[in-house]
Amino acid sequence: MTTEKQTQGTVVTLQHKSEVLKNNPPGDEYVRDVIVYLPPDYDENKKYPTVYALTGFTGRGRMMLNDSAFTPNYAERMDKLIASGAIKPMIAVLPDCFTHYGGSQYINSSATGDYEDYLTREIVPFVDDNFRTIRDKNSRAVMGKSSGGYGALIMAMRHSDIFGLACSTSGDAYFEHCYLPDIPKAFRAIKGKPKEFVEKFWDEDAKKAKDDFSGLNIIGMSACYSPNGADFDLPFDLKTGEIREDVWARWLAHDPVRLVEKYAENLKSLKLLYIDAGTRDEFALDLGAKILCERLKKFDVQHIHEEFDDGHFNISYRQNRSLELISKHLPSNI
Amino acid sequence: MTTEKQTQGTVVTLQHKSEVLKNNPPGDEYVRDVIVYLPPDYDENKKYPTVYALTGFTGRGRMMLNDSAFTPNYAERMDKLIASGAIKPMIAVLPDCFTHYGGSQYINSSATGDYEDYLTREIVPFVDDNFRTIRDKNSRAVMGKSSGGYGALIMAMRHSDIFGLACSTSGDAYFEHCYLPDIPKAFRAIKGKPKEFVEKFWDEDAKKAKDDFSGLNIIGMSACYSPNGADFDLPFDLKTGEIREDVWARWLAHDPVRLVEKYAENLKSLKLLYIDAGTRDEFALDLGAKILCERLKKFDVQHIHEEFDDGHFNISYRQNRSLELISKHLPSNI
Amino acid sequence: MTTEKQTQGTVVTLQHKSEVLKNNPPGDEYVRDVIVYLPPDYDENKKYPTVYALTGFTGRGRMMLNDSAFTPNYAERMDKLIASGAIKPMIAVLPDCFTHYGGSQYINSSATGDYEDYLTREIVPFVDDNFRTIRDKNSRAVMGKSSGGYGALIMAMRHSDIFGLACSTSGDAYFEHCYLPDIPKAFRAIKGKPKEFVEKFWDEDAKKAKDDFSGLNIIGMSACYSPNGADFDLPFDLKTGEIREDVWARWLAHDPVRLVEKYAENLKSLKLLYIDAGTRDEFALDLGAKILCERLKKFDVQHIHEEFDDGHFNISYRQNRSLELISKHLPSNI
Amino acid sequence: MTTEKQTQGTVVTLQHKSEVLKNNPPGDEYVRDVIVYLPPDYDENKKYPTVYALTGFTGRGRMMLNDSAFTPNYAERMDKLIASGAIKPMIAVLPDCFTHYGGSQYINSSATGDYEDYLTREIVPFVDDNFRTIRDKNSRAVMGKSSGGYGALIMAMRHSDIFGLACSTSGDAYFEHCYLPDIPKAFRAIKGKPKEFVEKFWDEDAKKAKDDFSGLNIIGMSACYSPNGADFDLPFDLKTGEIREDVWARWLAHDPVRLVEKYAENLKSLKLLYIDAGTRDEFALDLGAKILCERLKKFDVQHIHEEFDDGHFNISYRQNRSLELISKHLPSNI
Repeated sequence: MTTEKQTQGTVVTLQHKSEVLKNNPPGDEYVRDVIVYLPPDYDENKKYPTVYALTGFTGRGRMMLNDSAFTPNYAERMDKLIASGAIKPMIAVLPDCFTHYGGSQYINSSATGDYEDYLTREIVPFVDDNFRTIRDKNSRAVMGKSSGGYGALIMAMRHSDIFGLACSTSGDAYFEHCYLPDIPKAFRAIKGKPKEFVEKFWDEDAKKAKDDFSGLNIIGMSACYSPNGADFDLPFDLKTGEIREDVWARWLAHDPVRLVEKYAENLKSLKLLYIDAGTRDEFALDLGAKILCERLKKFDVQHIHEEFDDGHFNISYRQNRSLELISKHLPSNI
Repeated sequence: MTTEKQTQGTVVTLQHKSEVLKNNPPGDEYVRDVIVYLPPDYDENKKYPTVYALTGFTGRGRMMLNDSAFTPNYAERMDKLIASGAIKPMIAVLPDCFTHYGGSQYINSSATGDYEDYLTREIVPFVDDNFRTIRDKNSRAVMGKSSGGYGALIMAMRHSDIFGLACSTSGDAYFEHCYLPDIPKAFRAIKGKPKEFVEKFWDEDAKKAKDDFSGLNIIGMSACYSPNGADFDLPFDLKTGEIREDVWARWLAHDPVRLVEKYAENLKSLKLLYIDAGTRDEFALDLGAKILCERLKKFDVQHIHEEFDDGHFNISYRQNRSLELISKHLPSNI
Repeated sequence: MTTEKQTQGTVVTLQHKSEVLKNNPPGDEYVRDVIVYLPPDYDENKKYPTVYALTGFTGRGRMMLNDSAFTPNYAERMDKLIASGAIKPMIAVLPDCFTHYGGSQYINSSATGDYEDYLTREIVPFVDDNFRTIRDKNSRAVMGKSSGGYGALIMAMRHSDIFGLACSTSGDAYFEHCYLPDIPKAFRAIKGKPKEFVEKFWDEDAKKAKDDFSGLNIIGMSACYSPNGADFDLPFDLKTGEIREDVWARWLAHDPVRLVEKYAENLKSLKLLYIDAGTRDEFALDLGAKILCERLKKFDVQHIHEEFDDGHFNISYRQNRSLELISKHLPSNI
Repeated sequence: MTTEKQTQGTVVTLQHKSEVLKNNPPGDEYVRDVIVYLPPDYDENKKYPTVYALTGFTGRGRMMLNDSAFTPNYAERMDKLIASGAIKPMIAVLPDCFTHYGGSQYINSSATGDYEDYLTREIVPFVDDNFRTIRDKNSRAVMGKSSGGYGALIMAMRHSDIFGLACSTSGDAYFEHCYLPDIPKAFRAIKGKPKEFVEKFWDEDAKKAKDDFSGLNIIGMSACYSPNGADFDLPFDLKTGEIREDVWARWLAHDPVRLVEKYAENLKSLKLLYIDAGTRDEFALDLGAKILCERLKKFDVQHIHEEFDDGHFNISYRQNRSLELISKHLPSNI
């Protein structure tokens, strides 16, 4: 165990050997860091609420500790919020659900590995075993941005017995608007060869082009939403770019907007469901959020919906709002 | 009749009083210019093939004569091509199918007017009556770019008895790729008020914003594809941006890709069907062209498919290729 | 003489055979159109004030009559302003000072031709001879945008005996900000071969790249500001991009900011000197205007300085403001 | 002392209490991390060459260890290069020369602090005292990108007795091209209030606008190049944006291109002087490099000049080339 002192809180990096991820198809590492932030004056005789922070596509927990000139990283942010009294002392967990294809969307997939199980069945118990957490869903929150927001929504829908509070900032929703426009760019980037294309991302010397991120994004989502054994199906025809309606239907089955009805009862059990997005989001996730919230209303799911004047990128300051709402919705005795 | 001398050919502007457009819902002018290019040495004792050139969205025939520093306008281009022998002498017609909503897509609509009838039942006979045209489909071509390419495809599909040769450059096709990505931008631009939004375009003093063209584009297409009496239905919910699947289905019914099967026999009767697009087209119309050509192949429709290394804008030089192919596919005795 | 009816006013195109431009070095046409707008109800027994409208780089008078869907062209604008009473009836002149290098800046140059003489010694008398103009500087205005604004400033400085009113919208000024940043782009675009580069602009089939306009801009300005016989000197080293300080000094000698002192007395004699620019001008001409106006203040030259919330392009609506101010500053008996 | 295991090498973070930076004007921390990379199998009985890696503007040493999905950080890169045999085992030092104004350019300034002294008089001896370095200039290299490249050039010019090898990637040079174009943007961003502007950067909740980076860049450079006591002079007039020629002259005195002559003898003593830049560099630093190399040639300074097909950002892969050249130019007995 390595500890690294941050102003006041402490960042602890544990190594966890996953059974779930062992033998994952792309051969990604199954022994992974679990990074845990302990609040200042962490007291072995007390118990703390826990928040799981999920990163976006191409991210992993460690990146949330990256150093930046004018923006606090996740640990520095926690320190500031706790010091100012904006939030109660909490433990924060930064898991690593990165894959060879850029991410896992925090769901199980035969092409990437069972990251939904990994997070809920391995990491949560592992954290509870190693730290002084309050082992109750109402003191366990999940938050994230972009694909991390998607992950938070999935946890809220399918694992409300574990996570009683969920915050999604600019979470992937309403796939027609957030993914479809990337397909022509992906078509051009991938040039008919998805496997070679992925290898290029792992070859640092291969020059990246403008549309390449769209290519990886569509491939990464295919690996999550439309796996085919250890492989995956792309939602478009490699020769013409035409949408493959059958594959696309499999994607839509993972759209939070379409999942509300199925998981309405779970969602109703949450102590907090917070959804926000920027009104200039480059992936139209503000529209995704509006449509999602319409569905929540339709099924009488209580939630808080907010918008902010910004785009999709460089918005880590929005973490403050999620963390403050989480803190406010914890049991009153904490 | 006003004549205007261009290097060698002659541009004639006739006024035509339309019966079809009289009482059109938006109250657009029904007496319109019909601009006709006559080749150098136009001889009243000879007969000439005719090409109809259709403009893109927000365009009308007159704009094809706009002056530009380094790019010939349509008449200057004809002069050059005829002078060099690249094409045979032809008459060219530049009709005006502009509307209050930015365009007509050259089809009939209860919201904009019956521009398909206007073009085929009024303008073609009017031109044939006033000029020395060869009154035969095999000597009458239609060409256009973008919405003008769409118009050329519609003419090829539904009026192959009038136009025996058709060229579509970057013509609107496969609506999922060319229109859907504009919906979030249109949602933001229109701000829930489509009528007020259109008025803003007609108020020169009202500042235009970045996404406003997308707003007009989606409104204009709605007026053409999903009219509702004199009004029209937008393909998205004004409050959330969610796609209205019923309206969207009405749009798709106008997608050239979906119309191939129905009009396959007409298409087979053409002497020339030429489809090209730039491989960096901002509306993914190169993919639209690929998908369209796959359908043409499936239904055994002969056609020429080409791609070029450019985007959607400033590509009037591509008119050369269409005109040369038209000239080459005219009856050999011309 | 060809006349072309616009709503109410009349556009007359005269051919003028220039003595000044005959044998110009690039061999540009010396017989040119002079386009004149006559107000509605133009009366051969009355006399009218005249406004000369100068186009920007790569422009010529005829382009101001180009047709556009939502923006009136210059003649339509005059019609509207006269009809609404916003301006008094005036004659407007749209001269053609275009050159092989993209423009003339309306000054004399051994590399392009003597366009300052052409405009002041040939076109003004020619217009006065052919139309019912008031032959007095206080009833003769000059206006323009960008390089046309520069031209208006030059006329105001050196020909205040001809033009008693001048309006410069986003006129080239303070060359460090408006031209210097284009030099690296020009360096990359020109690739060491300025002559070949210019030919590419005249070859429609040669693909234009992103920085090419910067290349032409720097070449065009060199032909005007730093001619060298029939040739010209570029302000940067073709091998490294380093600024050639001697050439650059010749450019600066043409900067309106640097010319104020010399022509202060002329400028003081004007009835109107109006300077505006957009606060988001891509060539920083709003800063150019501020600096220019500081100089005018320093030398006690009366002027009106305004800013507007826009960039450098698509701002023809600003012509309204110039025309209204011109109308307002005409002699009271008109 | 905290150690953090990276694949094979070791990253050591030492705290250094600076005498030089104590009481620096902006009140920046004077106890700073010195991050040191030790090669795999670092042997206390051996001695190693050392490379100092300097970050760009708004950077500090720690950021070079940031985690990224597809790009190795500096330590991972060293591991890979050493493992593959591309470079010899070396110690790498990542100093922190960040300031309240975004950076120090690694020079002394009365406004920011004496960072040139800090690096050369404190950090180098401190590293030599704490690690098994070869204490010889020919085994001590300095490299960096952008402002870090500038720093490497300054070290090469003024401290060739300390650093015998220097690599500048896209280093700031020829200030007319790399800084001047930012002045209009800075003028607009700063809005007449430089101090308030800087505070905005330190207030995470204050929204950043598009031109704000240009504002900080010009302020940061002013603090380095044109300090005025504990304050600094901006190179432009806050009211008009006009260049203040006297301040600008003080900037130019720091331009590497202008410093070559003065430090030619020092530069000639180097074992390696490597200069590269991308041919699409957004700050035209490829032109800066060309011009700099022309000067080096003029004064007979041996150097290697290379260009690569890329821009200014996301080019950390270029570190490989610098490191390989450093390794190759070390004394042959290492």
